[in-house]
Amino acid sequence: MNSVINNPLWPEFSAQLKALFGDRFSTKQAVLEHHGQDESPYPMLAPDGVVFVHSNEEVATVLKLCHQYAIPVIAFGAGSSLEGHLLPIHGGICVDLSGMNQILEVSPNDFLVTVQAGVKRKQLNQEIKDLGLFFSVDPGADATLGGMCATRASGTNAVRYGTMRENVLALTVVMASGQIIQVGSRARKSSAGYDLARLFVGSEGTLGIITEITLKVYPLPEAVSAATCHFPSVHEAVTAVIAIIQYGIPIARVELVDEVAIAAINRYDKLSLKEVPTLFFEFHGSPLGVKEQAEIAQQICQEHQGDGFEWSSNPEDRSRLWQARHNAYFACLQMQAGCRILNTDICVPISKLAQCIDTTRDFLKQSHLKSAILGHVGDGNFHALILIDPHIPEDMREAERLNGLIVQEGLKAGGTCTGEHGVGMHKIQFMNQEHGEGAVELMRMIKCALDPKNILNPGKILPGHS
Amino acid sequence: MNSVINNPLWPEFSAQLKALFGDRFSTKQAVLEHHGQDESPYPMLAPDGVVFVHSNEEVATVLKLCHQYAIPVIAFGAGSSLEGHLLPIHGGICVDLSGMNQILEVSPNDFLVTVQAGVKRKQLNQEIKDLGLFFSVDPGADATLGGMCATRASGTNAVRYGTMRENVLALTVVMASGQIIQVGSRARKSSAGYDLARLFVGSEGTLGIITEITLKVYPLPEAVSAATCHFPSVHEAVTAVIAIIQYGIPIARVELVDEVAIAAINRYDKLSLKEVPTLFFEFHGSPLGVKEQAEIAQQICQEHQGDGFEWSSNPEDRSRLWQARHNAYFACLQMQAGCRILNTDICVPISKLAQCIDTTRDFLKQSHLKSAILGHVGDGNFHALILIDPHIPEDMREAERLNGLIVQEGLKAGGTCTGEHGVGMHKIQFMNQEHGEGAVELMRMIKCALDPKNILNPGKILPGHS
Repeated sequence: MNSVINNPLWPEFSAQLKALFGDRFSTKQAVLEHHGQDESPYPMLAPDGVVFVHSNEEVATVLKLCHQYAIPVIAFGAGSSLEGHLLPIHGGICVDLSGMNQILEVSPNDFLVTVQAGVKRKQLNQEIKDLGLFFSVDPGADATLGGMCATRASGTNAVRYGTMRENVLALTVVMASGQIIQVGSRARKSSAGYDLARLFVGSEGTLGIITEITLKVYPLPEAVSAATCHFPSVHEAVTAVIAIIQYGIPIARVELVDEVAIAAINRYDKLSLKEVPTLFFEFHGSPLGVKEQAEIAQQICQEHQGDGFEWSSNPEDRSRLWQARHNAYFACLQMQAGCRILNTDICVPISKLAQCIDTTRDFLKQSHLKSAILGHVGDGNFHALILIDPHIPEDMREAERLNGLIVQEGLKAGGTCTGEHGVGMHKIQFMNQEHGEGAVELMRMIKCALDPKNILNPGKILPGHS
Repeated sequence: MNSVINNPLWPEFSAQLKALFGDRFSTKQAVLEHHGQDESPYPMLAPDGVVFVHSNEEVATVLKLCHQYAIPVIAFGAGSSLEGHLLPIHGGICVDLSGMNQILEVSPNDFLVTVQAGVKRKQLNQEIKDLGLFFSVDPGADATLGGMCATRASGTNAVRYGTMRENVLALTVVMASGQIIQVGSRARKSSAGYDLARLFVGSEGTLGIITEITLKVYPLPEAVSAATCHFPSVHEAVTAVIAIIQYGIPIARVELVDEVAIAAINRYDKLSLKEVPTLFFEFHGSPLGVKEQAEIAQQICQEHQGDGFEWSSNPEDRSRLWQARHNAYFACLQMQAGCRILNTDICVPISKLAQCIDTTRDFLKQSHLKSAILGHVGDGNFHALILIDPHIPEDMREAERLNGLIVQEGLKAGGTCTGEHGVGMHKIQFMNQEHGEGAVELMRMIKCALDPKNILNPGKILPGHS
């Protein structure tokens, strides 16, 4: 059942939202459809209404009403989730937080900022750049920080600076009942009770709606250098990364882009990069430090048949290089007209990474679908971007089959089915296997305790908890 | 009510434990008393029985019985907690995990180890040293890793390497019902559902008993240098640290020891350190890197009236220096015969640290009790060690009054009442103020969901939840 408009209470409920929010409560088809699709291959599924909120109190008002009428409610930021997180599979209301886009406080001396959930990551970085600060977490999309919290996002800097798990200090959260609470504090560490902030980070809107976030930010490094290096095979590239990590180099970023994705980038960005498996590096530190890091990395790469190691501390070169890496997803989308991407996301202990990528490439080679591999290899995380024609059901089935095989490899290696994209609807099928039924039951107990009417993004994360 | 032996079911319950565990279930007075005291100033309070367990399954057996008979149960590691965590205020059984002291796996290529909860941190470091690895979290005591997990411990390395929050990858936990579950995975990051590992880290034995832990370890740095620097005042020392952190130096450790503690260390260690406020530094990196870090730190210290900056990369010098710092607590205990220490633990945003320490010193100066200040100042965390005669009730009242004043300063500054020691019994009084009643109620909902009979370390962490 994908709609609540046949619920006999809907007219009364929606009239109250209309009275409270006026034009900021919308049931226009175009608005509904815009809020019924993310970057996953799932077909559009529109909510029954969208409320554009401006404050914690307005979110609380919506949740109180939803709680009273037992209407599902889903938070919406930039719509850039990848696993169907925001699809209203039981109908209900979408709370659009994009208007809550104020940076509430920047405290450069404490390296922290407080933002509303609708602030996007590029907006934040633009705002704090002149203070010599940056925010490190950089998923591909220009997502909202609320969404990034909710999916426990990471990106290319996680190997050095951590994911949203490590970079959230405090949150304002609206509970299912409409109660507004604060969790965490401005202290960088605390032993004062249960770690509620970490509980909400990664909860995908199923335990509460995050409305404000206090984040760690970092001083812009004194010096930055970037490098690329070519490898005869993905296997050699990955083993070079493992050796660099094991050497203890405090590398800021290290990304693998396979030959297919390099070719796509060349076409998309009109570049002429050598079309072989390539590592993209970034080093942060003092001028001496980054030089030293790059030299050691170069030496290790050469020991693993890497060649053409080029490094640059020129900001324009670096920016061009990393822009190319950041465009890889969109470049791959252009490989096939009208395609969509099913993006796998396993993360494994680094000693198992080369083997997992090798096996993944074997699976992919045997398929008729086009695909490329990108990897946050310093974390043991990589993505197979599998291209499908959304109008051909067989494509989707084949992509799902490949995803299933790849996830099994990840779990066999002691890893996770999702390093950074989240569970949404798509990874629910792997939760029992990854965590065991006992741990999943524990998650379910927490969900029931915090959201007894199951109104918060129902049908996500938890198997058998529709 | 501090005992369950008048519970009509006790004879039946204890007979079952005896039958199952034989001599490993003890009700001998000496054994009970040993398990009824931690390093806090609270008087001894003995449990009704102690079970020495050897496996996850034995812990599960004990918990199933406790659950069936509704008998409180408290986990015990090294007994080094500081806030009365392990006192059986409602009587019950102590589960002594010190026999579960096996290092189950060392995976140097993945920088992770798996240990049983009774393994102590020095034992772990001894074991992995020859592999070129170390485990970073170092509270003063040689605590068990299970206890360190349960209190979300940190120590002198947290400024660079994080606390137990950042260093736990996975746990085996026995739930109140006796069910054994695994939480987390060997992947360094994951977005696969609720962060149950973080929920148990810092839960002080109130949500489950941690029996196995997978931890991050780090490569021993290629080079290490250590330094000390003297300051005319604590204020100048703290402002120097703030400037060093803000400069972005990836400092590994920076500790403040005030003039009182330096004097105590001199007596205890037969040293002749200059008796002024002193910073202890440690730098990790490449040989060039640590030299560069030390030079910048020296320059910043000089700008803040620091003098006598001495640095050394000689391992013996470093070890002597840090041994002195690590002995500071015990040195302070020797300042007054038969005394005990009430140890405050606030942690604040670093921009508020100098002011909080200044105010704290004003409070302490006006008291008749002796005291000293030690600080993990890079994290914004410091301890006032307040000496009390446990036989003089007025001393305890005065120390509590001071602690209350200091906590109020910490909370006013947006910080926490406890940076690393935990809540136990002692900080419960501050929980509502620090978190707000809504967040505390949420903690209580989680506690009720996971431990409906309230058998797991009852009366700790949560106000009004005896």
